[in-house]
Amino acid sequence: MTRTTDQEPEGASPERVSRRRLLATAGVGGAGALASAGIGVGTVLGVQAAREPQERSIQFGADVEPFHGPRQAGITTAPQAHLVFIALDLREGADARSIVRLLRLLSDDAARLTAGEPALADTEPELALTPASMTVTFGFGRRLVETLSPGAAPEWLEELPEFRIDELDEELCGGDLGLQLCGDDPVSLAHARRMLLKDARPYARPRWIQEGFRPARGVHRPGVTHRNLFGQVDGTVQPTAGDDGQEFVVWGHPPQHLDSPIRPWIEGGTSMVVRLIRMDLDGWDELARSGKEAAIGRDLSEGAPLTGEHEHDAADFDATTPLGFPVIEESAHMRRARAQSPEEQMLRRSYSYDRPPAGAGISDSGQLFIAFQADVIRQFLPVQRRLAELDRLNEWTTPIGSAVFAVPPGCAPGGYIGDVLG
Amino acid sequence: MTRTTDQEPEGASPERVSRRRLLATAGVGGAGALASAGIGVGTVLGVQAAREPQERSIQFGADVEPFHGPRQAGITTAPQAHLVFIALDLREGADARSIVRLLRLLSDDAARLTAGEPALADTEPELALTPASMTVTFGFGRRLVETLSPGAAPEWLEELPEFRIDELDEELCGGDLGLQLCGDDPVSLAHARRMLLKDARPYARPRWIQEGFRPARGVHRPGVTHRNLFGQVDGTVQPTAGDDGQEFVVWGHPPQHLDSPIRPWIEGGTSMVVRLIRMDLDGWDELARSGKEAAIGRDLSEGAPLTGEHEHDAADFDATTPLGFPVIEESAHMRRARAQSPEEQMLRRSYSYDRPPAGAGISDSGQLFIAFQADVIRQFLPVQRRLAELDRLNEWTTPIGSAVFAVPPGCAPGGYIGDVLG
Repeated sequence: MTRTTDQEPEGASPERVSRRRLLATAGVGGAGALASAGIGVGTVLGVQAAREPQERSIQFGADVEPFHGPRQAGITTAPQAHLVFIALDLREGADARSIVRLLRLLSDDAARLTAGEPALADTEPELALTPASMTVTFGFGRRLVETLSPGAAPEWLEELPEFRIDELDEELCGGDLGLQLCGDDPVSLAHARRMLLKDARPYARPRWIQEGFRPARGVHRPGVTHRNLFGQVDGTVQPTAGDDGQEFVVWGHPPQHLDSPIRPWIEGGTSMVVRLIRMDLDGWDELARSGKEAAIGRDLSEGAPLTGEHEHDAADFDATTPLGFPVIEESAHMRRARAQSPEEQMLRRSYSYDRPPAGAGISDSGQLFIAFQADVIRQFLPVQRRLAELDRLNEWTTPIGSAVFAVPPGCAPGGYIGDVLG
Repeated sequence: MTRTTDQEPEGASPERVSRRRLLATAGVGGAGALASAGIGVGTVLGVQAAREPQERSIQFGADVEPFHGPRQAGITTAPQAHLVFIALDLREGADARSIVRLLRLLSDDAARLTAGEPALADTEPELALTPASMTVTFGFGRRLVETLSPGAAPEWLEELPEFRIDELDEELCGGDLGLQLCGDDPVSLAHARRMLLKDARPYARPRWIQEGFRPARGVHRPGVTHRNLFGQVDGTVQPTAGDDGQEFVVWGHPPQHLDSPIRPWIEGGTSMVVRLIRMDLDGWDELARSGKEAAIGRDLSEGAPLTGEHEHDAADFDATTPLGFPVIEESAHMRRARAQSPEEQMLRRSYSYDRPPAGAGISDSGQLFIAFQADVIRQFLPVQRRLAELDRLNEWTTPIGSAVFAVPPGCAPGGYIGDVLG
């Protein structure tokens, strides 16, 4: 639905130029709003325009992912290089009116900032001018949905059941409102993060915030599967665009040939499961390469199934070694994770994190695992239960944070995210 | 000295292609070393080569900043998008022999990783293949220099004197060895950080680690001055390349026409002053735009002196308003920071940081200020003293960390950083 500029050719296409012009125009529109807020950035936007002839075609600072539309951006959008995930708690006494005010404000901020325009009353408007494909994706917790529209929360909107592998830190779990900010420029992303938190402050306070990264834009050719900090190719099996893939898995519209109970909780909506997973790099590094590959069921160099040659080769789970053992072990991650039914699919959009270590260690690293699926109970949970029960990778991975959000549809210009519930 | 690829045209020049080939060759060389370490990444490097025809000219994953040479990289190198600064403490009982072993190891790692090759015994070799202009710059604390070569430490190699604006946290200060890692790809940077910390572990432990960012590569045209999180254009006044500029300021060779006491502590060496500066964004945002501009002495939109129109216009410090007040106030940052003598110059290479807030705040942001100059006492200190005494910006900025390092020259292939002191 959204324009995934990451997948476009990188040359100076006329389309690209016209998007720049579009932005310049949008910027001038935004300047009016700013002037009314007493901030004179009209000149800034002028300067930006004057610089255009000198810009080269590789530059993507002005690339825009449309915010408005029937579905939110940042879901099927090709993952940008940087993520900041913000989980907010509503202040005590929040009611439907104050929630609507909050959502209106944040939707307006998000619409402007993702378009490369300063937010209303933006105090650092110059930091807003390079959106670099920024997206802001809103997810609602049960309390928010039920306060806004009693009875509207889908049945799966609750904390995940406890799994025996979990070592959850309450401070890294939950949230009434989850904001997934993604973009290819860390500076405009930091600015957006601050603007959203500032405008949310009267209504909500940060519960947890987690940053993440993937390869910088321009490091790989578009479409290459990224690697996590274990060095694994991560995210190979994904629903494709189109009727049999994302339309079903993410948006809850089963293809005609499939008799499936999957339905969207609301048209244009989906769910977002977030798991903060600590990765024990020290322990992982003690494994020989062959041991790592056996744990996953894929080779490390290509990400190919151990029964194949290339990343996207279908795995042969029946193949055995000359001694009769399965080539892909019973406990291998890829065997345990594979779908047992057409429903057991999700769209993964995960990011690595790497924090300064506390104490004697040398790293505190892991992954912010983010999965989108129409129905948490039917799609995500069976896979997660199987992995919690048995998965060689569990030896080196520990879930420390967890949250589930209902993702409402997008909104039209003038509307706000959640207005269908209002 | 180093190739600053950021300043090159971004087209597919033959030079660019030949650098790729160079890298591929270097990679094959590295594979031999890996094979002897029992790691079969030969195929990986083969795959990388096979992908080349599909790569587009904008891709910079394979760009290499040469590690070897008479001066270290990462100093006059155009700043890359991401930084990780690692300050290490030597373990108790460290002697010259163990320090040499540490420096040999880390230099070998840095040489390989910056060339896009896995480190020796690299456990995630695939994460090393996109150096994206990575640099690793070594700085030595007094204890390291004096243990390695008694009497060799320059007089300025000690903690800075305490300034009344400081609120230093001991855990964010000092270090026996400072490693400035910079690169345009956060993934290969995370990998390099871990490899260096892993190999250092028997000899040294992390004292403090700080990440930082600037605009992503590809967001601005090369040469644009970045903005800090206050929205200010930051780093306009810099020594130029050449005899009157960096040769003097950074490397300690005064131009012939100048009778200056500045000398390098060692040929090809310099100093690195690191200050972790917390920025009070909430307080800053309470200022009107004109108040912010008065505090700096420059306008926000362009970074132009308040007496000029463009960023690089010379400031007129004698200009007055119709009422007779100075246009650039006495306490304005730019007036207080400007050089009073040819010696009072430094090369600044700072990065923003933006950490999840602890407690009730919405942000914990600031800047890792990094300055290179041949002589800390004659170049950095007079400016810092003046700013500590009076600078409007002090109201919203607080130094919370501080360190001074002696930067030794670069090394030749087969050598190690610090070998001139060995």
